[in-house]
Amino acid sequence: MRATVMYGGGDVRVENVPDARIIEPTDALVAVTRAAICGSDLWPYKGMQPGEPGRRMGHEFIGIVEAVGADVRLLKVGDLVAAPFAWSDGTCIYCREGLHTSCLHGGFWGGTQLDGGQGEAVRVPQADGTLVVLPVGRDHALMPSLLTLTDVMATGHHAALAAKVGPGKTVAVVGGGAVGLCGVIAARRLGAEQIILLDRHPDRIALAKEFGASDIVSERGDAAIERVRELTQGLGVQSVLECVGYAESTLTALSIARPGGAVGRVGVPQDELMPAVSTFFSNISIAGGPAPARAYIQELLPDVLEGRIQPGRVFDWVGRLDGVPDGYRAMNDRKAIKALIEF
Amino acid sequence: MRATVMYGGGDVRVENVPDARIIEPTDALVAVTRAAICGSDLWPYKGMQPGEPGRRMGHEFIGIVEAVGADVRLLKVGDLVAAPFAWSDGTCIYCREGLHTSCLHGGFWGGTQLDGGQGEAVRVPQADGTLVVLPVGRDHALMPSLLTLTDVMATGHHAALAAKVGPGKTVAVVGGGAVGLCGVIAARRLGAEQIILLDRHPDRIALAKEFGASDIVSERGDAAIERVRELTQGLGVQSVLECVGYAESTLTALSIARPGGAVGRVGVPQDELMPAVSTFFSNISIAGGPAPARAYIQELLPDVLEGRIQPGRVFDWVGRLDGVPDGYRAMNDRKAIKALIEF
Repeated sequence: MRATVMYGGGDVRVENVPDARIIEPTDALVAVTRAAICGSDLWPYKGMQPGEPGRRMGHEFIGIVEAVGADVRLLKVGDLVAAPFAWSDGTCIYCREGLHTSCLHGGFWGGTQLDGGQGEAVRVPQADGTLVVLPVGRDHALMPSLLTLTDVMATGHHAALAAKVGPGKTVAVVGGGAVGLCGVIAARRLGAEQIILLDRHPDRIALAKEFGASDIVSERGDAAIERVRELTQGLGVQSVLECVGYAESTLTALSIARPGGAVGRVGVPQDELMPAVSTFFSNISIAGGPAPARAYIQELLPDVLEGRIQPGRVFDWVGRLDGVPDGYRAMNDRKAIKALIEF
Repeated sequence: MRATVMYGGGDVRVENVPDARIIEPTDALVAVTRAAICGSDLWPYKGMQPGEPGRRMGHEFIGIVEAVGADVRLLKVGDLVAAPFAWSDGTCIYCREGLHTSCLHGGFWGGTQLDGGQGEAVRVPQADGTLVVLPVGRDHALMPSLLTLTDVMATGHHAALAAKVGPGKTVAVVGGGAVGLCGVIAARRLGAEQIILLDRHPDRIALAKEFGASDIVSERGDAAIERVRELTQGLGVQSVLECVGYAESTLTALSIARPGGAVGRVGVPQDELMPAVSTFFSNISIAGGPAPARAYIQELLPDVLEGRIQPGRVFDWVGRLDGVPDGYRAMNDRKAIKALIEF
């Protein structure tokens, strides 16, 4: 079959790989119908060293079940399913608590051992626990929005929950990539009163406003902090969604939270350390991490199906599997917010 | 009047200072009846440089109102009052939210500008917002426990809330000083099922067990982390109370929280930075800071008055004002957990 493999910085290829197949009795074989390229896929695209073994790519996909292992009970051949960006057994202590990304028997797609979503088919481990059956046809018009539930919309929602967004709250979203834009949707959905987006790209800003952002801060660093304070009677915001992960954006996020506020971080931290002192004296809480998309797909699905949220609008680039390298390039060059792959 | 002044590392004196007096119409003048020495008073006692201006000390006290300013409405001469370790107006946006330590018009006792609690009298700014009237006589038998509400018991309670302690939870308390011991009381009070104290001092351990600690870990560093894992089926605990503030104790606290767990930190961070990555991937939340004791005094008062909690047992050294330097020495030499000053 054909699948995407990353070999080094800027070197991503679509090539022939061994066919995906059932190995464990708890596996399902899924033929991919839609996949996406994630902002986090750009980390190895920017920084992977030549000489590392090739990595299978992609962790956001929807597809059709083609075969199931002997122990699979909840899925049948022909089901259209969404796969969260982590697979999980659905039964361990963490899955039962809704933290599927810490599943004791789970893991993440791609790499050197597993299939990735940016390919024709995927062996899905722990299929009963992992996959969510979608009650629509494979080419339904809502497919882009449904696909975001596998990662970016779930992640934006996670950031908002970690940042304790609620009715009437003042919120800032640091970073207007696909996750940040979904964070705006999530904050709006949870009833935030003021939603400040920190970003400087016109296409992202335009979409954020349509999603419900009330204010835009295009300054960076200290000027951004100052501007957020001006927009919040000098106080700072109650909830901050950190959707980037760089040291600078993290520092900004921690600095614009008001005393007693909460920072929800979903941008993978690129620095080993973060400030410990200022947040202490202001009683600012810091939470977040990889989103348990498995839990949130079901929570957010009705809002997508009934059209109350339209996160699929973050896709502004659509291509086919053999166009995946172009999709990476478009996102890396900031010519696209997020790339959708149709099969 | 006589009051405690710190001049340098190891150099704390009781000497004559100008009498405390009403300055602002919102002030009250309080004659101190009980005060305490805090673990945080030991930071300057260990590290203050000679040549710095002398600092008035003490932020935990109970006393009798001797005079009130013209604008004070809620207090009258003769009231026995407890003063939280921060003064606050009670009316600003943060006070109304219960975060009195971030009061827009508040501050902290002592230093170079204000009276401290380890002295005969204190000018209390924002008296209506700051002071809590106690419904007992000045030498009531519960006075030690009531005094802990001004800081250490409130702080232990804050750590427990920040660590999301609740019924049935597994909890670890890092550090068995007065705050950690109160953290054990708070965790028990909030319904924790397992309470692991990390400390190695026999006197603290004995008291912690009486307060409800179910397990003791006397190892440090990686060995402590390993031992906590053994005590929790390999998972780590759901709630960690960080009651020290050193880099090593903070690292231990973050490392023994299980995925999805919460660290409540109340030990003043001695390091500018803390780890950012491992807590991210495990979705561990970090919260806490200076406790809004003003709010908690009222919340915890019934439990003290009705004898359900006995935090006053952390005082194992009692002296008079002229013995304050001995109290510092006893605490610094770890011969006392906490010193009580009677007037």
